[in-house]
Amino acid sequence: MRPVSIVGIGQIPVRKRHEKSIRQMGAEVVRLAMSDAEVDRVDALFNGNMLSDELQGQKHIASLIADEAGLHGIEALDVRAATGTGAAALRMAYLAVASEEADLAVAVGVEKMSDGVPTPVIAKALDAEQEVVNGDTLISKNAELMRLYREHFGAPKDAFVNFAVNAHKNAQNNPNALFKNKLVTAEEVLNSRMVSYPIRLFDSSPICDGAAAVVLAPTGEARAYTRESVRMLASSVATDRFRISDRDNPLFLEAAHVSAQKAFRRANVHRDDIDFFELHDAFSIMATMLLEAVGYARPGEGWRLAAEMEIALDGCIPIATQGGLKARGHPIGATALYQACEITLQLTGKAGVNQLDSPSVAMMQSVGGAGTTIITHIFGV
Amino acid sequence: MRPVSIVGIGQIPVRKRHEKSIRQMGAEVVRLAMSDAEVDRVDALFNGNMLSDELQGQKHIASLIADEAGLHGIEALDVRAATGTGAAALRMAYLAVASEEADLAVAVGVEKMSDGVPTPVIAKALDAEQEVVNGDTLISKNAELMRLYREHFGAPKDAFVNFAVNAHKNAQNNPNALFKNKLVTAEEVLNSRMVSYPIRLFDSSPICDGAAAVVLAPTGEARAYTRESVRMLASSVATDRFRISDRDNPLFLEAAHVSAQKAFRRANVHRDDIDFFELHDAFSIMATMLLEAVGYARPGEGWRLAAEMEIALDGCIPIATQGGLKARGHPIGATALYQACEITLQLTGKAGVNQLDSPSVAMMQSVGGAGTTIITHIFGV
Repeated sequence: MRPVSIVGIGQIPVRKRHEKSIRQMGAEVVRLAMSDAEVDRVDALFNGNMLSDELQGQKHIASLIADEAGLHGIEALDVRAATGTGAAALRMAYLAVASEEADLAVAVGVEKMSDGVPTPVIAKALDAEQEVVNGDTLISKNAELMRLYREHFGAPKDAFVNFAVNAHKNAQNNPNALFKNKLVTAEEVLNSRMVSYPIRLFDSSPICDGAAAVVLAPTGEARAYTRESVRMLASSVATDRFRISDRDNPLFLEAAHVSAQKAFRRANVHRDDIDFFELHDAFSIMATMLLEAVGYARPGEGWRLAAEMEIALDGCIPIATQGGLKARGHPIGATALYQACEITLQLTGKAGVNQLDSPSVAMMQSVGGAGTTIITHIFGV
Repeated sequence: MRPVSIVGIGQIPVRKRHEKSIRQMGAEVVRLAMSDAEVDRVDALFNGNMLSDELQGQKHIASLIADEAGLHGIEALDVRAATGTGAAALRMAYLAVASEEADLAVAVGVEKMSDGVPTPVIAKALDAEQEVVNGDTLISKNAELMRLYREHFGAPKDAFVNFAVNAHKNAQNNPNALFKNKLVTAEEVLNSRMVSYPIRLFDSSPICDGAAAVVLAPTGEARAYTRESVRMLASSVATDRFRISDRDNPLFLEAAHVSAQKAFRRANVHRDDIDFFELHDAFSIMATMLLEAVGYARPGEGWRLAAEMEIALDGCIPIATQGGLKARGHPIGATALYQACEITLQLTGKAGVNQLDSPSVAMMQSVGGAGTTIITHIFGV
């Protein structure tokens, strides 16, 4: 296969409510990413969006964004993996360039969650016939995992607070973060509103609007576009049993483990080579379990990495370096593209105040549903 | 890139209302296709489905089908291009194998249109803000094209009738066709109920349920799975201006032309090398315009190929050889996978009563929206 690199990025600030339409937001970041790569044409566009069928009454978004961006005639397709949708779009663009079907491809993600009530729509990531029918939502399933986890491992009540504290701290230096002006303390997290027992407001990522995009090119040609490209060392997807209740061990994210192992083999790196990890901290319990599934902590001890602030910028495994899903925001279809942009900035030394010390390898994981589909990407310079 | 072949197919009969759920239908054809290829594992599954968000309240279908089929741990992603969704799933599976990211991939399509009222959901393939808001549906936009076409080119009232006559004739020998026992005459077509002027019932494909799948493998390894594989010579996608009203010439399907030309170059074939053409006859006007866009007729004369029955099994460009969208049925996400199965049977001499005389190259086109996204595939033996 042909190696693939990121040669351009584009992102707009995450907001509670964006005044632009999804097509405008999508086209804007596509143009920003193309401008960053200094190209005026791409061969293909792969779009990630999870909720527009219901919230905007719109399907067929990829072609709509291509049209709005003036990219008439190109390939344009929509790709999805529920709440991991943005990473699915990135993977498809990667496959298009790796297979030599496209010489330049843009992966774009856009989500406008502010139109209507997104929670029941997001719940469609679960099993309609056997979960949603019983009143389950993605929040309630994560709450179930958090309850189980605390009971089984005896994690203290304040085990998870630092995920939010760290995310909000890092977000303050990210101009695109939703919560760039909102530092939170451990006490505020612990006393925040109970959303779905035991998940509190600060254990969960916010409902918001956003869009981001990256331009991919063959690594061999990357220098023609930019001096600061980032290589995509691996892209992998694994699924678990669809429902938590069917899993042998609901507290171990098997798909995250399998997907990460596949990616490590492909990238020829060890987990200890990873300088930072943009993970799917949609809920603090999910962040905890991903750290465990990948092997950064033993089962039941992922939260200790937060408690001891080893997830901070100067910790042993920094996460959410620009605020993560928790504080940059989690506009679903766009989230992984924001992460890819942030990783590109970190690896090219342009991450601003939150710049890590010369990182060379980064990992990203995205989660569809309650741990059902996990998409892993590894990037390097 | 690595050449790709179809090494297994699976399809179930199209029905007005299928008693099984979408996950069951999807898993059934995945298992059939895997059994046909004599494999018990694939690396990846790409699913096409357009309407389940609304009709079944279910997203995240690919992982649901993988789970139901017992394929735990594999990659599973959803792919879409509105009404051309099935072909988008096929293309993604093709990219996965071509890029060497998967050694065996299954493309599956499933649609259950019988739950609820699909027409307003299908209309989301159009522009919600500028078309649907004015009362447009996919039927009304095709009606607009048919009206424009008849006015502009002076096509007679009965110009399109043979598309239905031919499709129903061919469907009678396809055990999976919805209308396998329903021959229609030109008079019946002409006198059928007016759906949306000037589109009559028999100018349009039916609402129905169905599922189909194909297994893809590297061409170099195809013989390990089957002695009768079919090569995928090309896969291409092109988009037009999203809305008909923005196109310079609304009566010429520019995206179909561009996509076909790309595919011809890639496959290194000329349109005259194509032995039969499984096109997107969701509406007779769309079949007419596709024949023109690809170059089998001059603008305004595509209907003559039907009038003179050159689209029949013994004509110069056979279409809908197993009934097409019109009479096999058009369960949207599954349609292109049915076509891929039918093409495989034709090219391997197993098409039964409708077998063409030793065909060696076939083309397939799928349409997302009112000509917005066109996906072309070329197959050969």
